[in-house]
Parts: sequence; structure tokens; C-alpha cells
Amino acid sequence: MRVAKFGGSSVANAAQLKKVANIITSDPSRKFVVVSAPGKRFDEDTKVTDLLISLGKQGEQNKPYQDELKKVIDRFDEMLTELELSKEILKEVEDSLVSIMEGETVFTHKMDALKATGEDTSAKILSQYLSSIGHPASYVHPQEAGIIVSDEPGKAQVLDESYDKLYQLREREGIQVIPGFFGYTLEGELMAFPRGGSDITGSIVAAGVKAELYENFTDVDSVYCVNPTIVDSPKEIFELTYKEMRELSYAGFSVFHDEALIPTIKAKIPVAIKNTNNPNGRGTVISAERSLTDDGPVAGIASDTGFLTIYVSKYLMNREKGFARHLFQILEEEDISFEHAPSGIDDMSVIMREGQLTPGKEEVVLRRIKDELRVDQVSIERDLALIMIVGEGMNRILGVTGKATQAISNATVNIEMVNQGSSEVSMMFGIKKDGMEAAVQSLYKEFFEA
Amino acid sequence: MRVAKFGGSSVANAAQLKKVANIITSDPSRKFVVVSAPGKRFDEDTKVTDLLISLGKQGEQNKPYQDELKKVIDRFDEMLTELELSKEILKEVEDSLVSIMEGETVFTHKMDALKATGEDTSAKILSQYLSSIGHPASYVHPQEAGIIVSDEPGKAQVLDESYDKLYQLREREGIQVIPGFFGYTLEGELMAFPRGGSDITGSIVAAGVKAELYENFTDVDSVYCVNPTIVDSPKEIFELTYKEMRELSYAGFSVFHDEALIPTIKAKIPVAIKNTNNPNGRGTVISAERSLTDDGPVAGIASDTGFLTIYVSKYLMNREKGFARHLFQILEEEDISFEHAPSGIDDMSVIMREGQLTPGKEEVVLRRIKDELRVDQVSIERDLALIMIVGEGMNRILGVTGKATQAISNATVNIEMVNQGSSEVSMMFGIKKDGMEAAVQSLYKEFFEA
Repeated sequence: MRVAKFGGSSVANAAQLKKVANIITSDPSRKFVVVSAPGKRFDEDTKVTDLLISLGKQGEQNKPYQDELKKVIDRFDEMLTELELSKEILKEVEDSLVSIMEGETVFTHKMDALKATGEDTSAKILSQYLSSIGHPASYVHPQEAGIIVSDEPGKAQVLDESYDKLYQLREREGIQVIPGFFGYTLEGELMAFPRGGSDITGSIVAAGVKAELYENFTDVDSVYCVNPTIVDSPKEIFELTYKEMRELSYAGFSVFHDEALIPTIKAKIPVAIKNTNNPNGRGTVISAERSLTDDGPVAGIASDTGFLTIYVSKYLMNREKGFARHLFQILEEEDISFEHAPSGIDDMSVIMREGQLTPGKEEVVLRRIKDELRVDQVSIERDLALIMIVGEGMNRILGVTGKATQAISNATVNIEMVNQGSSEVSMMFGIKKDGMEAAVQSLYKEFFEA
Repeated sequence: MRVAKFGGSSVANAAQLKKVANIITSDPSRKFVVVSAPGKRFDEDTKVTDLLISLGKQGEQNKPYQDELKKVIDRFDEMLTELELSKEILKEVEDSLVSIMEGETVFTHKMDALKATGEDTSAKILSQYLSSIGHPASYVHPQEAGIIVSDEPGKAQVLDESYDKLYQLREREGIQVIPGFFGYTLEGELMAFPRGGSDITGSIVAAGVKAELYENFTDVDSVYCVNPTIVDSPKEIFELTYKEMRELSYAGFSVFHDEALIPTIKAKIPVAIKNTNNPNGRGTVISAERSLTDDGPVAGIASDTGFLTIYVSKYLMNREKGFARHLFQILEEEDISFEHAPSGIDDMSVIMREGQLTPGKEEVVLRRIKDELRVDQVSIERDLALIMIVGEGMNRILGVTGKATQAISNATVNIEMVNQGSSEVSMMFGIKKDGMEAAVQSLYKEFFEA
């Protein structure tokens, strides 16, 4: 059994929904379907979720909201017309939206409920359409499915009791269509997931029904091994491990919203990224292990700019028990996340995204480092780019580090920082941002064109 | 004005003391002399300090100590005979030792006082000898010199008020000979410095008198750029910065007892390492800056075995604010010092000396990491060696990282870990200990023979 999740562009209009129906019905193992709200039909279009947010904002400001409401209804009306389906649900949707708008509930709850209407209606229309073309399908309300979540509006977390209930869905006949993005608390309150919400629902359902595969249909054929804006037509990645996906998605790769995958990863279910517009393409499969024989040791090269380092040095630093802990505690207390902290004997470079160190925090942090740690020197280096070479087991293959550093040198780019730990699946290079493109191109040549 | 410090082998016997006197008198700027206690005269010999410790232990166990006392006196007697000096001080030394042994003081204080007799008598004999050959010299008691220290037997720290008093020594006529190793508290109690104690005295005196150079005479010509047991007759290092010295002395290089240098470094006084047996050799000068033009970017290669890493991995680790801080706090609470902590996105390797993780601590630490940090995986990797490539400004010279990694690969040694921070003066490579010699030899070839 498979769980297939379709993103916003896959359910943007009737034409796309027909492709989705084709994909689902072409393989009887695709028994569970999770859908997003309809996305953009063309570049300047507005996503249904954004229409619903505009609707909510009108209500928040006590302004008339009939125009906004009509835009939402019109989107669904168009889909139903083109799919030749009954328009009975339009009235239901309208009544439900009005009742949320007029209700006496707090704003965050109201917003969650409004936005959820997008996915909910998608699921209803798709199940109706599947049945209309002779493939019995049922819409399953998330509460009925058993998606039980914590009481945190907009950032709900799934509760463990969900999984047993979800497993029972396996007993049902026909195709089960579940709206993405939201669940219900034990008290029966609707709660939305954070960003990537439909991916989260898909991941939870896949774990719950113990699917053999979680298929994530989007609008790209597969994941590229390097940013295609830096290297022309780069190679596609057909297999990735969960760890590799995480390392890649960290620096410039938007493979996946990685928190979404936690339930699937815990259940060790492979994830396939596929294209709704090219469903027979090989796609990219992400799983716990991959065969390392086909491809080289490097799975991909990620890169991103916008980093800085706080450099501290102090004579005899490495004799001072608790120095690193104290430094990190200062950052934690100032609510600053850092990425890496390569160190010498008497110095340490703490790498973070530039946005972490606002001018106000910069002053406080530098002062605290000087006063509390009594360092000899503290300075900030900006305009850094990080390049991550990612590959499972890479560090057990001789010479990868040498090849990588040589490739960067060949691009006449100086390596400012290197960070590679034992058994790790990535190697990090810190360079000046101006050299990033040249370095990435040279690395691509070394590892993927040699 | 210079401060010249002579180590144990330089004052081991009359012949060595004559060399010392020659060195001192050959340059009138050598106005301040600091001496250790007499060291070994031949391989199987016993250092005077060790004779004094044996003496103290006899007393501690209430055993007769006449034999041990005689051995100490005999050493000094022999020197005085050969230097043709009056033996008046022998009686003084003996009386002083007996009075310490019979005194009602606590054991740590007693030990400090006994051991200090070695340096003290060295200084007395040397000043007497210098005067006898026509170079007026005075023995200066540390209390009189102004070496004021904290009340911590065996690990005294110099107090800031020492420096003004020491500066006044500049006014004195002739050569001032000061015993190393000990100072006095404000209350007038004798306190010994920790290991490297005479180096500490020399460093304090150099800072106090604002010397132009602190000469440290020992029994080697200079510092080698790599461990001479791994590479035959390696190149000598003529110039080093304080930072380079620290990085080198960390892994396998016993350049200097680095805490000893703090006063000199703070006062930015250059330090020369010279050989008493070859005083005209170039030696090695350690200072705040070095000329980078003569030598290559790499000053030296240090290496050491006996490291392990604790490897932890956890999905989404880098999103977890405070993870590294918490991990380091566990280590701190279990009294474990670590060296480096290279990290990936979701994993981290904490490198430490094997001795830090006793079997008892290992169990506690692994359990705490599992329980408190809820990691996906924690494991220990042993038998690691670290290699440090050290050179000021190395990371501003293109391709050093590439050359270094390539050299290690050429030795068919796999690089397990790399750690190089921004603006740092070293690059760390973690490898399996079996590959250490081959890797170091290959690096030497690349950076010093190319």
C-alpha cells in the first residue's frame, strides 16, 4: 500500500486534478491520498490558501468580506464545472466559511479553520471526481481518520495515539482521500500544522497505515545534485538517504520540508519525490539506506550564502574547562542559533546565519564574550558562503577530502573553514561568498563529470 | 637587557656551569639570570630535585634521612670543589634542610621548601662563581626580588604587584642571579610554582624588568618543524609566533611549558630557545609576529595519538537550540575536557584524549547523552591520531588545505575528521593512529621538501 500526497500545483485546477486521478487509478496500491489546497494555475494567480488568509484578515479588521469569499467559492466552482460534478458542496463550503467568520472564536483558531477549508475542499472534490469516473473513493475527515494533535494553533504536533487509529484505515474499501494540513485535538478543536503542513499529514498517514512507500507528487522530476541556477542541467539524484536529504536541504536545497518527514523516517518508510506532470519519470527515492555502488561517493553539493562567524581567541583556551559551553550558553541566552563551531587550540569560529546576529544582539554578544570569557580577541567575519559536500559513507572512501579541497583550489577560491566529523555524511567548507559559484562549479566537475 | 634562564642540564655540574658563565659574560646585556636545580649529569643520574623529594618522603614516613641529605650535599660539594669556591654555603644548605625536615609545618609546604633548595643553591653557586671569575654577580632571593605569589602550595600564581617591584631590579649593578621555581606570599610563606616552575620565574622576571629578550637555554639547538622520531633530521624552525608555539606544543611537541609563557606573552617579549652546549646556534625565536616571507606558510607539523571521539547523531539536531551547549555541559559536569567538536547538520563528533573517558565515566556519559539529549545514535570511536598543520596566516594562502589533504591521501591514509576555523593558525586532521607516521612523513615532504 502506498500513500500519495499531491501538492498545490497538482490540484490547482480541473486539468491537474484529472492527471492526479490518472496517477491514482493507474496503480491499485495507491490507496491513500493526501491533498494540498489548490495552488497557482498560472504565475500571477493566487493560491486558495492566500485567498482564505485575505478573507480572514477582512474579518479581523471588521471589514466586509463578500468579495474575498466569492473568490474562494469561484475557484471551487470552476473546478466542479470542468469536472462535471455536482455543486452541492459549494453551499456547504460557503456556509462553513461564513460560520467561521461570524463565530466567537480567537483569531489564531479562526485562521487555522479558514485555511483548512482549502485542503478540505480539495479532498472532497477529488474523492467525488474519482467516484464519478468509476473508482470508488471516500473523503476522510482528519478527525475521523484519527489525526490527533497537540493544542498549538498553527504549529500542532501529532500525538502518538494517532497511529493506531490510522492503521485501521487499511480495512476500508476503495480510495481514501484525506485533506492535508490539519488535525484535531483530543477535545475536538481544529489545529493546523506548521509550514509544509500537507507533507506532514502525508508523512503521518504513511507511518500510520504502515505504507510501503510515501509518494510525494510535486512539479519537479527529481532532485538535482547541485543548484541548477549555478550549474546548467545538472545530474538528477535517483537515490538519497534521509541523512543526505537533511544535509542537502540545509544549505540551499529545498528538497523537502525536513520536519515533515519525521514520522516516515521513524517508521523507515521510503519517500519518493515525483512529478505529477511526468509520473513515469524515475523520481528521487529517499530512504534509510542507498546502494553506494552506482553513483560516486558524493550524492550532492549544496551551497548557500548569508553566513558570518564570530571568531574568538584566548591563550590557553583549550585548558579552560567549560569555555565552549559558556560561549554557547551566551548565544543560547541571547536566542542565537549557530551552525558549526570549528576550533583550534586557542581559538574558535562560531558560524551562524547572518540574520541571527541583529545589530542589537551583536553588541550584547560581543560585550558578554569579552566580559564573561575574558578572551584576547573577538571579531566578526561576514559575507561567508558555506558549501556542503554530502554523501553517505563518503569519509570511508579515500581521497574525497583531498579531491574536494583541490577542486576548490582549482577555482582559485581560498578555503576559510573546513568542518568534517567522524562518521559524518557531509563535509563543510566555508569560503568568501564571491567565490561560491566558481567553487561549486569546480566541485561539480570533479565529482559528477570526471 | 635580557633575561637568561638555564635549565637543569645546563647547571648539572661544574663543567656545565662554566659554559653558563661563559654565555652570561659574553654579552653584557645578559643582566638577569634564572636557574633551575641541577639536573642529570649522565643518563642514570638523579636530578637534585628528585633527591630532595626522596629526602622529604623519608621525613614524611618518619624514617631516618641522613643518607638522602648526604646525597644532596655531595652534589653541591662536588660542584664547589670543581669550581674552586668556598664551601661556606654547604653548612647553610644543610642547616636549612634539617630545619625544614624537623619543622612543624604541613607536608605540602615542607615539600615546596625542600625542592626550592635545589634552585636556590644553584643560584647561590652560580653568582659566587661569576664573581670569582671577575664578573660581579649577586644572588637575589625571590622575596627580595619581588616575586609575590598566591597561597597555593605547588601551584602558586604570580600576583600583579610583583612586576613593579621586579622593575626596580634594573637599577642594580652587576649580574643578578635569581633561583627559579618559587616565590613568596604576601605573608612571607614560600610557595612553589607548578610544573615548568623555573620557566615561570624566568617569564615573570622578563616581564617585570621589561627585558628586550627572554633567553631560555636548554639542551637542544632549536625546535624542529616535525617530530624527529617520525622524520629523520627535519628542518629547524627559526621563527615561531606565540600562537604557533601553542598549537604545536598541543599535539606531541614539547616546545615549552606553555602556561609559563603567559607573563612574557602579555608583555610581548620575544622568547629565544637556545642550546647551552651550542650558544652560537641560531636557536628558535618565539614572538608575537614572524616574517612570513622566508619560510612557507606552514611552520610545523605536530602529531599525537591517544584520542577518541564521541559521535552523536540526531535527526534535526541543528534546529535544537542549546543542543551543543547541553552536550558540553554533560561533559563539564562529568569533569571531561574535550579538544574539538566538528559537526554536521545532524551530528557532532566530540574529540578528546582517551584518558578523559575512564570506563566509569564512559557509561555515565553515554547514558546521560541518550537520556537527556534523546539522540538517535551515540557511539565511541577509538585509536585516533590528530595531526595539526600549524602556520600563522596559513588560511590566507591559497591551496594549503588542498595540498595537505592531498599529501595525506598520497600516503593512502583516510581523513576521518577535518577542523579548520576562520583566521585560525592551524588545521586539524583526525586519522586512524596506524596511518599517523605515513601521513606526517607525506605532509613533511609536501611542505618542507618540495
